[in-house]
This record gives sequence, structure tokens and C-alpha cells, in this order.
Amino acid sequence: MELKTVKGMQDFLPEQAAKKQLIEETFRKVFERYGFKPMETPALEDFSLLSKKGAAGEAIKEEIYYFKDKGNRELGMRFDLTVPLARVVASNPSMPKPFKRYQIEKVWRYDQPQQKRWREFTQADADIIGTGSILAEFEIIAMTIDALKELGLKGKVKVNDRRLLEEVALQSGVKKEQLAECFRSIDKLDKIGKQGVEKELKEKGINTQILGQLTADLNSLQKKAKTAALLKELFEMLKENGVEQFVQFDLSLARGLEYYTGIVFEVVVEGPSIGGGGRYDNLIESFGGQQTPAIGISFGVERILDLLENKTKLENKTLVFVAPLKEEFNGAALKLAQQIRSLGIGVEIDLMQRKVGKNMEYVNKEGIPFAIVLGEKEVKEKKFRLKEMKAGKETEIKMSELEKLAKTVKSST
Amino acid sequence: MELKTVKGMQDFLPEQAAKKQLIEETFRKVFERYGFKPMETPALEDFSLLSKKGAAGEAIKEEIYYFKDKGNRELGMRFDLTVPLARVVASNPSMPKPFKRYQIEKVWRYDQPQQKRWREFTQADADIIGTGSILAEFEIIAMTIDALKELGLKGKVKVNDRRLLEEVALQSGVKKEQLAECFRSIDKLDKIGKQGVEKELKEKGINTQILGQLTADLNSLQKKAKTAALLKELFEMLKENGVEQFVQFDLSLARGLEYYTGIVFEVVVEGPSIGGGGRYDNLIESFGGQQTPAIGISFGVERILDLLENKTKLENKTLVFVAPLKEEFNGAALKLAQQIRSLGIGVEIDLMQRKVGKNMEYVNKEGIPFAIVLGEKEVKEKKFRLKEMKAGKETEIKMSELEKLAKTVKSST
Repeated sequence: MELKTVKGMQDFLPEQAAKKQLIEETFRKVFERYGFKPMETPALEDFSLLSKKGAAGEAIKEEIYYFKDKGNRELGMRFDLTVPLARVVASNPSMPKPFKRYQIEKVWRYDQPQQKRWREFTQADADIIGTGSILAEFEIIAMTIDALKELGLKGKVKVNDRRLLEEVALQSGVKKEQLAECFRSIDKLDKIGKQGVEKELKEKGINTQILGQLTADLNSLQKKAKTAALLKELFEMLKENGVEQFVQFDLSLARGLEYYTGIVFEVVVEGPSIGGGGRYDNLIESFGGQQTPAIGISFGVERILDLLENKTKLENKTLVFVAPLKEEFNGAALKLAQQIRSLGIGVEIDLMQRKVGKNMEYVNKEGIPFAIVLGEKEVKEKKFRLKEMKAGKETEIKMSELEKLAKTVKSST
Repeated sequence: MELKTVKGMQDFLPEQAAKKQLIEETFRKVFERYGFKPMETPALEDFSLLSKKGAAGEAIKEEIYYFKDKGNRELGMRFDLTVPLARVVASNPSMPKPFKRYQIEKVWRYDQPQQKRWREFTQADADIIGTGSILAEFEIIAMTIDALKELGLKGKVKVNDRRLLEEVALQSGVKKEQLAECFRSIDKLDKIGKQGVEKELKEKGINTQILGQLTADLNSLQKKAKTAALLKELFEMLKENGVEQFVQFDLSLARGLEYYTGIVFEVVVEGPSIGGGGRYDNLIESFGGQQTPAIGISFGVERILDLLENKTKLENKTLVFVAPLKEEFNGAALKLAQQIRSLGIGVEIDLMQRKVGKNMEYVNKEGIPFAIVLGEKEVKEKKFRLKEMKAGKETEIKMSELEKLAKTVKSST
């Protein structure tokens, strides 16, 4: 029983962990190309911060890991990386702006576990703090398109503006005090369909006319809604940079979190969402900081891992296996392994005192591309045969010219 | 109040976070060179696992973040990465051996916060599971020496064997049932000194004669203790590979954790310990797995960060800043930035609509090495001047030949 992982959480064994790491490295690379810098914050935050009205409110207690520590402090495991960022910015008012940070770390939610919904998962976030310029929206979207490309994913960024949705909703007879509830229902469109949303709206006593507007295009909306202009400008910029085919206006995109104040986006790949974000110009002020415009995006690393899992086949980073023929050649094997490692090449040696046949079985199973067997002859003559496992080809190499080995091994990968 | 980090925990702002990341990447590189593969496990584990007798025992409850979740499960935040590893191995008996995994993740301890002692910190662990061969001890130590070198640290690995310490203690009149208590006191030698340990031993009714033995060298011990032979063999191997000067025998090294069964080590740099480990051949079996020999090492990333903090000056990964002269050149600036980014170069553009002077102040403060100002002339003539900030040197570059820019920028770093 106690040998299982905690309910709703998972281990990443080597093959999966290596792919996960590759995804995270890709984000790091792309984020840095856009001038974002890394940051880390603690897994635990004061519950009073997590439950602040501007963040998630008192109700969040039911959806997170909440507890009191031995000093009777009310704590919670962070449920996202945006609230900790807002805390850092609010408490460091002298930080130079724009503050462009990325953070790739785990978060925890006490959700009901479902398929592909974990209680622990990894977010890759990038945020721009301190500017209200539409250039920031452009950068976040352009960066997202780059990241998709680098990950080998065909996806789209759906874009909307909360204020536009609000304007259209009010024009369609939704009352101002019903807006939040109305958006919460619209947000479920993918899950429960148009009929489901209609039913919910009716139950809440909200005018359902809005549903007929949700597929409207931006040009037609521009004629009747003032708040369409900013989106129009953003789409022009994206077009000028030749990436408009990766972006799609979607008036039905509401996004659940209440802290968004303007443009919002969602990243979809073959249907499922792998990330989203938007502008949240009031969050930092609501934490007691200065009025500070902010925008960001958050990717779900495990969701991307699911998409890539069956596609990507990773190379083994161990390139050479050194097998002594008998125990007495252990010393020579060690020495050779150390010399090859000093050239920056990944090497394993036999740690199990196995016979050559068993060792070659292991090498094949692990997908290690090259093997060396060391016996009396090799030690005496100070040369060995480097066997390329797949081709069966052997190359003779002197112990004194390991650069030849490095060349052969590196050219094969 | 709620804008502070939780007691005993810290944020890593960009400069520190980038250094921390560099340390973690270095470990990853060295671990992979020795054939270790990555793994991740959840932050939370069942308390019944963490408190198992072979692991840390029931008393650990006082030293960890322990709580019950909404489903009334007793959980704890992991206090190390070895117990989760033992769980994974015990529950996957068919895993091919040797299983060489590394894991770089955060752990949590409810310690009394002191200077340089955090309640959240990062461990970089590497373990070899499934072999009792002394070659595994060699690999762990050789890898540690490589890691120190790559990190630019001058350190030593102190090595001992628990069984040797035990043998000498018994010869010195310590009773068998007093061994654990005796080692616990000896472990405090660095903190409370020889007199302090002597006082503790006396209070516990333990023969203090052992204290006279702790500085003995391995050769003299070999004459009176059978269990010195394995250490002797290990030191011979290290000598043959020319790394004996980085290793030091130390009979007083006990290491607190009870699960160690054989050789133990500790890594010290200029005094402070930055890591340690040893052989724990019974832990996996005590979790209900098969009898499985195991050995590993654990580095404290924050301790290394403290050592490097004032030494390492990291290069800014943003190499170019693009500043439009007026708002009307934003589009051209964006386009240029995107083109340079597509060459893999980190670029920031002005997101604050600042004047050129302010922008150059920002560029200097952030240490960005190159800047481009775009105005009417540049846009019209399709060329610009790339300014090297330190030297003040300017190079004229056509928009159509950005490879020239890439060459200049990359050669400067």
C-alpha cells in the first residue's frame, strides 16, 4: 500500500523524465531568446496570500493542499506560479521594469483525479511585468508560436479580449452583475457543448442571446464594439510578421480565472489545450503593490509530454559501454572509461561482473550505440576494438588516440 | 505580512536563479557522462513510507511538513530523494539492474531555521542500485571529483566505512547496543568539538577511549581491523586513476542517517560540507522489496550556490536590445527582433515606449552587450548600426545580411 505514489500524483521514470526535461529545456531556450530570466519561489505560500480576493478567494481552500504547520501557520501548496510572481513584484517595488521572468516548476491542486488531470503538475510560465503596451501581447504570442515550432507541435493560439466579450454580452442583454457567472458557463463550451451552456445560462436566469454571437468574426464585431480595436491592431502586427496562420480570434474564449483584465489566450494542439494566459493589470495592486500592468502565459508540461510521448524517441546519452572480459581487467576498464568521460562522452562500465554475452544483452536493451570489450590482448597491446552495435562494424583504436574514438562516436549521433 | 515568503524559505530572483540553474545543469552533464538517467517523484509521499523503520522512523514527524489531506490521508513532504527512490525500486522489481538514476529536485524539512539552513532546499542525487561491487563506490567518488572540477570548486571527499568505525569502537570498549548513540555523538565532532563529544559520551555512559582512535590512518588500522581491507582496495583504485589527492580517509565520519551499511562519504569545500552519501544495502528490502544493494550521493545545491555566489559572474543571455526611435517604428523594431531571434540570439525590444537615452540606461544597467536604434533613416535605407556598448564601437549592418550581426554578437561572448 505505502509503496504507491500519493493519489493523483505520478513518478517520472527515466525515459519519461528525459522527455520531460527536453520539453523544459526547450521552453528555457525559447524564453531566453525573448529576454526572459529565470526565477524560483517556494512550494509553500501563506494561505492568506493564496486566498486573497484578487487571487483566488477563500473558496480556493477546497481546491488546494491546505494545512497548518507546527507553528500553527496557515499554509498552502502553490496552485499556480502567477500568484507567487505577483507577491515578489508587490514586495519589490524598486525592481527595474519591464520585469520579464520565466519559471518552470511544479504546482499542486486538490482536484478530483481524472484521466490526464494530476494533483501535481509542472507549469512553464513567462510573464512581462510593468508595461501595458500591446507589444507585450505580441511578444507572448510570437514566443508561443516559436515554442510550438521547437517542440514539433502543430498548434494555434486562440485570442480574445475580456472587455470585448463583456461589451458584446452587455449588448446581448446580459446584466452587469451576471457577467462573471455568464463567463464561467461560456468557459465550459468545450466540455458541455452549446446546449449544456444554454441550459446553465437559463438556470442562472441569464439572457442566452449571447450564444448566437460567439462565433462572430473580428471584422464584423469591429463595426459594433469599440473594444475590438486593440485586437485588430494585434492581429495586424501578427500578420506583418507572417504568423497570422497560427493565431485565431475566438470570442467564446473567456478563461475561468477572475484576475484577467484584457486580452486572453489559449494554446490548443490537435484539440486539447496545452496552455493559456492573458493580461492581469490589477493583481499586483490588489496584493498591496503599486498599480502595475502585467501579462503572461502558462504551459502545462505534462500535457505536452502526453502529446509527444509516442512521437519522440530520445537518443541514449550513454554512448559507450566498457566491458572487462574478466574481473582482473576491471582496473583497465575503469581507467579507459574515465579517459573517455574526460572527453565529455557518456560511458557506462560493467558494475555487475557479468559475462560478455550478458553485457551485450544489456547494451542492446539499453540502446547504447557502442561497446568495448577489454581482455588480456587489449591491455597488453594497448589497443581495442570499438564495436558499433547496430551495424556490427568494428574499428581498431589505440588507447593513446582516443580522439579517434570521440570522432567516431560523435559522428554517429 | 503575507507578502513575505513562508518562514525558512526563499525566493530565487533572476541573478541567483540563473546561477542555481547553471549548477544544476553542471550536475546533469556530469551525471549523464557516468551513465545516470533522470527521474522525478512527487513532492508528497504517504507518511507511512517516510516513517518506516528502515527510512526515518516515526520520530521524523517532528522534522517534516506533515498533514492530513481532505481525504484524511496522512501525508508528508519528502525530506530527501533516497526514500522515494527506494519506493520506486521496491515496487518495480523487474527493473533492469544496475539502475543508475539521478534526481535534482526540492526537499523540505521543518528544521529550526538558522543561517544557511533552509526549510526548502534542492538536492542533486545520483544512486547506483543493484550492485554490491566496489566499482560503484569508485564511480560515485570519481564522479564527485569531476563535478567539483566542473563547478570550479576545490574540495575533498572524506571517506570511511561504517563497519570499520564499528569494529574500532567495539575494540575500544563501546558496547554493541551503544553503537548508534555513539555514532550520533561522533557525528557532531565538527559542531561541538572533541570536548563536546567527550561530554556527551560520558553522559550516555559510553567508553570515551574511541576518541583517541578517530584520527588513525588507514595503514595502521589495517593491522588491527579486518574491515579496513575494502577501503584499502578503494583507495588503491583511486590512486591508480590519479585522483587520490582529492580523497581523504576519515575514521570519524559516521553520518547521522541510520540506513547506511558500509562505505560512507562526505564532500567538503573550504570547510563546509556540500554533500554526502554512502552505501545502504538494506533500505529497499526494508520497504518490502527484494534484497538490493545500493549506493548514492546527495549534493546540496543551495550550499554550492553560497560558495559560488560571489565568484561567478554570469553572462547576460540577452545579447541585443532593439530600440525604436519613435512609436511609429515599433513595427520595424519587432520585425528585426524576430529575425535576430530566429538565429537563436536573445533579444529584448523596448516595451515601455522609452526615449533613446532611457533605453540606453536600461541596456547598461542590465548588462546587455549590443544595442540597435531604429529610426526613419534605418527603416528607409534598410540598414542599421550595431552598437557594442562597452567599446562604444559601431558596425553598419544591412537588414538583408543578419548573419554578419550573428557573427559579431557571438564572437563577443
